[in-house]
Amino acid sequence: MASNKKLNFPKRKKKKSRQQNKMGKAPGTISYMGDKEPGNSVIYCTTYNVDNFEIKEFNELDEFIKEDRGDKISWVNVVGISDEPFIERLGKHFNLNPLVLEDIVNTEQRPKIDEYDDYIFAVFRMLYISEEDEIIGEHIAIVLLENTVLVFQEVKADVFNGLRERITGKLGRIRTRGADYLFFALLDAIVDNYFLAIENLNNRIESLEEEVYNNPEPIVAKNIQQLKKEVLKIRRWIYPVKELISRLIDSESHLITKDTKLFLRDVHDHTVEINESLQIYREMSMSLMEMYMSNMSNKMNEVMKVLTIMASIFIPLTFIAGIYGMNFDHMPELHSKNGYYYVWAVMIALFIGMMFYFKKKKWL
Amino acid sequence: MASNKKLNFPKRKKKKSRQQNKMGKAPGTISYMGDKEPGNSVIYCTTYNVDNFEIKEFNELDEFIKEDRGDKISWVNVVGISDEPFIERLGKHFNLNPLVLEDIVNTEQRPKIDEYDDYIFAVFRMLYISEEDEIIGEHIAIVLLENTVLVFQEVKADVFNGLRERITGKLGRIRTRGADYLFFALLDAIVDNYFLAIENLNNRIESLEEEVYNNPEPIVAKNIQQLKKEVLKIRRWIYPVKELISRLIDSESHLITKDTKLFLRDVHDHTVEINESLQIYREMSMSLMEMYMSNMSNKMNEVMKVLTIMASIFIPLTFIAGIYGMNFDHMPELHSKNGYYYVWAVMIALFIGMMFYFKKKKWL
Amino acid sequence: MASNKKLNFPKRKKKKSRQQNKMGKAPGTISYMGDKEPGNSVIYCTTYNVDNFEIKEFNELDEFIKEDRGDKISWVNVVGISDEPFIERLGKHFNLNPLVLEDIVNTEQRPKIDEYDDYIFAVFRMLYISEEDEIIGEHIAIVLLENTVLVFQEVKADVFNGLRERITGKLGRIRTRGADYLFFALLDAIVDNYFLAIENLNNRIESLEEEVYNNPEPIVAKNIQQLKKEVLKIRRWIYPVKELISRLIDSESHLITKDTKLFLRDVHDHTVEINESLQIYREMSMSLMEMYMSNMSNKMNEVMKVLTIMASIFIPLTFIAGIYGMNFDHMPELHSKNGYYYVWAVMIALFIGMMFYFKKKKWL
Amino acid sequence: MASNKKLNFPKRKKKKSRQQNKMGKAPGTISYMGDKEPGNSVIYCTTYNVDNFEIKEFNELDEFIKEDRGDKISWVNVVGISDEPFIERLGKHFNLNPLVLEDIVNTEQRPKIDEYDDYIFAVFRMLYISEEDEIIGEHIAIVLLENTVLVFQEVKADVFNGLRERITGKLGRIRTRGADYLFFALLDAIVDNYFLAIENLNNRIESLEEEVYNNPEPIVAKNIQQLKKEVLKIRRWIYPVKELISRLIDSESHLITKDTKLFLRDVHDHTVEINESLQIYREMSMSLMEMYMSNMSNKMNEVMKVLTIMASIFIPLTFIAGIYGMNFDHMPELHSKNGYYYVWAVMIALFIGMMFYFKKKKWL
Amino acid sequence: MASNKKLNFPKRKKKKSRQQNKMGKAPGTISYMGDKEPGNSVIYCTTYNVDNFEIKEFNELDEFIKEDRGDKISWVNVVGISDEPFIERLGKHFNLNPLVLEDIVNTEQRPKIDEYDDYIFAVFRMLYISEEDEIIGEHIAIVLLENTVLVFQEVKADVFNGLRERITGKLGRIRTRGADYLFFALLDAIVDNYFLAIENLNNRIESLEEEVYNNPEPIVAKNIQQLKKEVLKIRRWIYPVKELISRLIDSESHLITKDTKLFLRDVHDHTVEINESLQIYREMSMSLMEMYMSNMSNKMNEVMKVLTIMASIFIPLTFIAGIYGMNFDHMPELHSKNGYYYVWAVMIALFIGMMFYFKKKKWL
Repeated sequence: MASNKKLNFPKRKKKKSRQQNKMGKAPGTISYMGDKEPGNSVIYCTTYNVDNFEIKEFNELDEFIKEDRGDKISWVNVVGISDEPFIERLGKHFNLNPLVLEDIVNTEQRPKIDEYDDYIFAVFRMLYISEEDEIIGEHIAIVLLENTVLVFQEVKADVFNGLRERITGKLGRIRTRGADYLFFALLDAIVDNYFLAIENLNNRIESLEEEVYNNPEPIVAKNIQQLKKEVLKIRRWIYPVKELISRLIDSESHLITKDTKLFLRDVHDHTVEINESLQIYREMSMSLMEMYMSNMSNKMNEVMKVLTIMASIFIPLTFIAGIYGMNFDHMPELHSKNGYYYVWAVMIALFIGMMFYFKKKKWL
Repeated sequence: MASNKKLNFPKRKKKKSRQQNKMGKAPGTISYMGDKEPGNSVIYCTTYNVDNFEIKEFNELDEFIKEDRGDKISWVNVVGISDEPFIERLGKHFNLNPLVLEDIVNTEQRPKIDEYDDYIFAVFRMLYISEEDEIIGEHIAIVLLENTVLVFQEVKADVFNGLRERITGKLGRIRTRGADYLFFALLDAIVDNYFLAIENLNNRIESLEEEVYNNPEPIVAKNIQQLKKEVLKIRRWIYPVKELISRLIDSESHLITKDTKLFLRDVHDHTVEINESLQIYREMSMSLMEMYMSNMSNKMNEVMKVLTIMASIFIPLTFIAGIYGMNFDHMPELHSKNGYYYVWAVMIALFIGMMFYFKKKKWL
Repeated sequence: MASNKKLNFPKRKKKKSRQQNKMGKAPGTISYMGDKEPGNSVIYCTTYNVDNFEIKEFNELDEFIKEDRGDKISWVNVVGISDEPFIERLGKHFNLNPLVLEDIVNTEQRPKIDEYDDYIFAVFRMLYISEEDEIIGEHIAIVLLENTVLVFQEVKADVFNGLRERITGKLGRIRTRGADYLFFALLDAIVDNYFLAIENLNNRIESLEEEVYNNPEPIVAKNIQQLKKEVLKIRRWIYPVKELISRLIDSESHLITKDTKLFLRDVHDHTVEINESLQIYREMSMSLMEMYMSNMSNKMNEVMKVLTIMASIFIPLTFIAGIYGMNFDHMPELHSKNGYYYVWAVMIALFIGMMFYFKKKKWL
Repeated sequence: MASNKKLNFPKRKKKKSRQQNKMGKAPGTISYMGDKEPGNSVIYCTTYNVDNFEIKEFNELDEFIKEDRGDKISWVNVVGISDEPFIERLGKHFNLNPLVLEDIVNTEQRPKIDEYDDYIFAVFRMLYISEEDEIIGEHIAIVLLENTVLVFQEVKADVFNGLRERITGKLGRIRTRGADYLFFALLDAIVDNYFLAIENLNNRIESLEEEVYNNPEPIVAKNIQQLKKEVLKIRRWIYPVKELISRLIDSESHLITKDTKLFLRDVHDHTVEINESLQIYREMSMSLMEMYMSNMSNKMNEVMKVLTIMASIFIPLTFIAGIYGMNFDHMPELHSKNGYYYVWAVMIALFIGMMFYFKKKKWL
Repeated sequence: MASNKKLNFPKRKKKKSRQQNKMGKAPGTISYMGDKEPGNSVIYCTTYNVDNFEIKEFNELDEFIKEDRGDKISWVNVVGISDEPFIERLGKHFNLNPLVLEDIVNTEQRPKIDEYDDYIFAVFRMLYISEEDEIIGEHIAIVLLENTVLVFQEVKADVFNGLRERITGKLGRIRTRGADYLFFALLDAIVDNYFLAIENLNNRIESLEEEVYNNPEPIVAKNIQQLKKEVLKIRRWIYPVKELISRLIDSESHLITKDTKLFLRDVHDHTVEINESLQIYREMSMSLMEMYMSNMSNKMNEVMKVLTIMASIFIPLTFIAGIYGMNFDHMPELHSKNGYYYVWAVMIALFIGMMFYFKKKKWL
């Protein structure tokens, strides 16, 4: 069955409220754009160095602020960004520019990486597949500071579970490296999830392809167009990432070591691959539509052939029957003894002739 | 209902008069291009610094000129640009190049930013939605001088109301900053309004999409084509802005501080987003047209099926009836007692056979 | 009515003779390519400085050469370029490279600007609208020397009349400036005329658009295709100009002052605008063709509907009539008293049922 | 017959397992991605200098490692990459970065060339034609070290047989040159094989072209679409190679001599040619689809013509027969002596008239 | 009539043998790729300086080699490149790189210009029109040495006759210049011939255009597609030349003087013009196909209209006749005296009504 998902694309209803809320406000004004219910923000703070690690949960910002984390690496994961004063105070604590705070809570923000003197600020879309097999794109903001990485999410995603396990389980090299490696690892986890979206699209293209060949109903055309739209939407989220990471690799910020850039190059390769796939899916959905149209034409041809064959055979025969249904006083054939049989003979001959003709034309 | 707006695109009727008015004239000749009734220009001058502000309205240019505004920031908003001598004298007062004055009154001018030694000159289209739900593009010219920002409009727009309130209400950081920040704030207000146009287009695409699926009348095709044209028109107004602001950020003019460039980067991000949306709308309108054509084909297929089914069933039956309407003297069947019922039996059998055949072909 | 102009595009008949005339000849050979009747060249020489001006006409080259024009600015307008020896001697007088002379008389030459040490050589297409409302592209060559501007035309065009009036009437700043400003003014006049071609195309698109909606005859499709071709042709003449002027602005030639470059920037803006328009017209003509096809499909649908309705209603009714036209001895209905009226009742019921069915399908 | 190959494109089933296997794992984790049965890796080591050569096969890694190959050139061909610990130990022996090892066993890796301080790492797709005439793309990884070239393959391909013969047979200049020349020779062999894929595509296009003209069945449309997909797939494998080699030529690595770069330029030329071909095939497959659609329309036209001719001729004739089948008491014609023959005359005249009409319209 | 030429595009049959011949061979191996019969190479050597010239023909390489040509300019024209040892010895005599020799005999080589320290090596396609009016592309290789230009051709072409005459006739400046000017003159002759191919394509487009409008048979669609393919093929030969010459102009090789570069700029202009034409032809052939499809639709519409008109008029009339052919005992109309004439009246009224209806719909 063709997947017939509702696409809320592009989510301009929010945009509308954005316009209504924001127009005329000063830039740098922090106002939450998302559609989540307002609620408290929670901080999940993971601190670690080579030797040990600690995971704490803070419901009060003050507790978090007065805690001293020394020179350990801190991964400060803020879940829930609708609490504007909370974000503002946290931003002040880490000396973040108001424009950065504005983008953190702007859930419609396009992917970006901005370098500031003391920190690097990144916004991405985190893609995952919902239980209804839909591709969901969540806004996520990451700030890389000296020894700290801030992550702002709307909901706690399990995208980073593997990363958390590597820290707690001392797997891989993450415990031996700095905050920039943590920053890379977060990016890597996000980009790895893009492959899931790609895979989901691929499955849908394959099932649509099958339907186009077997059962070219109008609903299939509709689904192809919706797939196209979804590819456009996802492309918009993923496409800029390639360039952003490429610029990060070329950046001269002291926050990212040369060693970590080697790993970023790997992430960059992945984004290139994903963008190529999206490009291919776009061309394939165009081909699908073309194929659908060609199958439609083909069906029309078949319908027309049936009509033509039926009409071409029986209209002349009916004409002959009509002739001998005329009531003229003087129609010698009518009185011939075998006239009726001769007429049948002619009609059968005509019928067979027609069949041969259509056979020759390959319409049968 | 499909919005069936009249598009006066591209407004070459003005162009025509432009050619007739301007051809052969020296460059730098100030001649108003717009279609507004000639009238007096009015100056709304807002002066402010951190401590206080003042808003004055001048109907006479002389009064404005002799006023001393000290080193406060002045926002000189000229409404009405059809009074050519007025513009010329004002231009001379601020030492503006005649080419600049020519562009100020040229309501057909493409968006541009030109840097001169003492000022930066910008032309944009200010988009807003009319009460008839149409997208209107008004010509606006802005000049950034040392402590002054000149704004030239045809009509007083409420696009800048929010900005005015921030000045009078001391909201945000505007009162503490220079003329370049005011210049940025004006740009920001203009670009924020582009989102309204984008939203309007999006709504129209959505309603067209619905109609294509539910009610693919020829008027829908016409509306899709008109939407395409409007996207082209708006793209022409918005597209250059991205590049212009990008160049402004890279500019070395002493008029724009590094701090303000940070804010311009934000505006630049918005223009990138808007251009992406326009690109997507363009592709979506192409898909809509494709879908319309596919639905047309589909309807044709349905019509043909009905015809084929009716004709294929009844033409053979009519032939049989015709046979026994013949007037041959010797037709044994006619005299058989149940001949009539046998014929009915054959015809009903044929009918049922045909129905099965079409059922199998999924035409029913 | 659709404009049904003859397009002599691309004028390869001349190209052919070019090949036949030129192949194997040395480069730099001066051979006239145009289709004008050979005739004498005439020189219209306008000399001026701030204080006075003089216009002279020379039919003999010698007279022109021996004249001393001092350090005034000279605008040497050569009309008629088919007189090859004339061009050659004039070229020698001004020390022009043979390749330049070759291009001056090559009426098929693509727009170009070549910088030499002592002069700048430019070739353009001068567009104007003929009395038959066709767009004509005339070859024009301009050479900027120290104090002199040479202009080579096939026919004397009135494109430069406005410019001439500005010199004689001392309007604008032209009399106070050097030869480079005159060079710019000539370019400006040529590019201003491009707007007329653009306007002409726009009018034709608008009238075609109307016809596509109201009267989609095959001739309209033909006219759309011809419009497309004309846009391609004009694009070929206009497109390179943008880049050429851009390079001229960046040029380091001593012949063009910084001040004049400011004005060239203005011309450049115009060419950008014209190219954008051409691009839009191209997309619009594609949309027109699409719309034409969609209207054709629509008309076909209508034709089919009429056929289907007529056939579906009357074929079954005819079948019923056929039944009771059969000549079986035993057909009880025939002898029933009201049989005839019952049959009419059944047929009318069928008719009404069909009408409802088609109404429900919105085919009526 | 149209080649109706199964395309496993894009192989996301593996991707899926990639996601399931890899997500959350640290980057640089070595995990085999391919679909080959796990098995032992075998090393085929060819060492040579100008004077002699030696080919050895190692089934145990330890034996290979303790062997001293002096300063001869070594071509270490590892066949089988599913044995992860084997790859890891070999990588450590040659001091390779874990990211490199990860890519060596990642059979889905996009073509890439990464330069490290001590080695150059390249991944390509090696194309060959299977016995079923399909294009197979095998993952191959090559590492260029000081005197050694490591090659990692899934299966031992005969692509390098010619190269091996040149070494053993002392043909060409390979024995006199360094490891970088061997590296080039491997690249050259891989790229030479691309021409086979190109040739295979070309043959399929030619056979499809023939079918489109002679026998435009729906299966042909399907095959055209599959060809398109295969071109997209192969383009994805081949396209990046051009750029990669171009960057290698510009590289400043000490590992590649200026002399070898001259040869790489040759390989680069080949990749340009291959990419051009792929581009042309893409356009040709689009043309094929267009042609298919045009042929479909043409067939439809023919079917419709037959129907129209039959119906237009016999429906009026049947009407005439129907007239004289009416049972009115007073129909004078019926009693005219030659009425029957007159009716035949009229019908034959009508028939002939119709035939002329259709002849004139060129429908016959 | 549509030109129905056989296109051997792309000539992969040779490629095949290339693969079979070359795969595994060392790069720099000289193996002839062409399809000419093997034969002896002949050298036509033209030596000249300002004062005199000499043309000699050598059938033996040794004679040519031992000849001393002093410091005159030598144009060494080698006709026939299938004699591999001949090419190899000649190459050694002039110290050419084996890769160069490989490309000289590779008749499938893409256009290229490679600069070496002592010579510049160029490969082009020389286009000419065969007697069957087909466009033929011959491989030609040119080497520019200090005082010598080597030209390698498969057959002696008359493309260079004009050039030869200029040398022998002392026309133009060729006798006064160096080998680089001769090199330019050869290029110029080749590029001049491209205009002939362009002209040939143009003629074919024009004749196809006429046919599309007057006689849109399926063969026309086929010819349009073949034209498209030919444009692609020729584009492949011509397109790279523009870039190659551009790079030659920017080259710093001591072999080309600044003066000659001025002439190369002229050749570059020609290649730009040719590429523009090819681009336009590509778009025109797409328009042609579009127009063909639109004409097909139009014809279908006409066919359908005839069918609809005939059926819609006569099916209801036949129904009426059928009514009064029924044999009911009680049908009062049958016995009415003028019933027969009334029925005729009704039928004629219906006929006229239908005609008006179709007239109103503009179907007649």
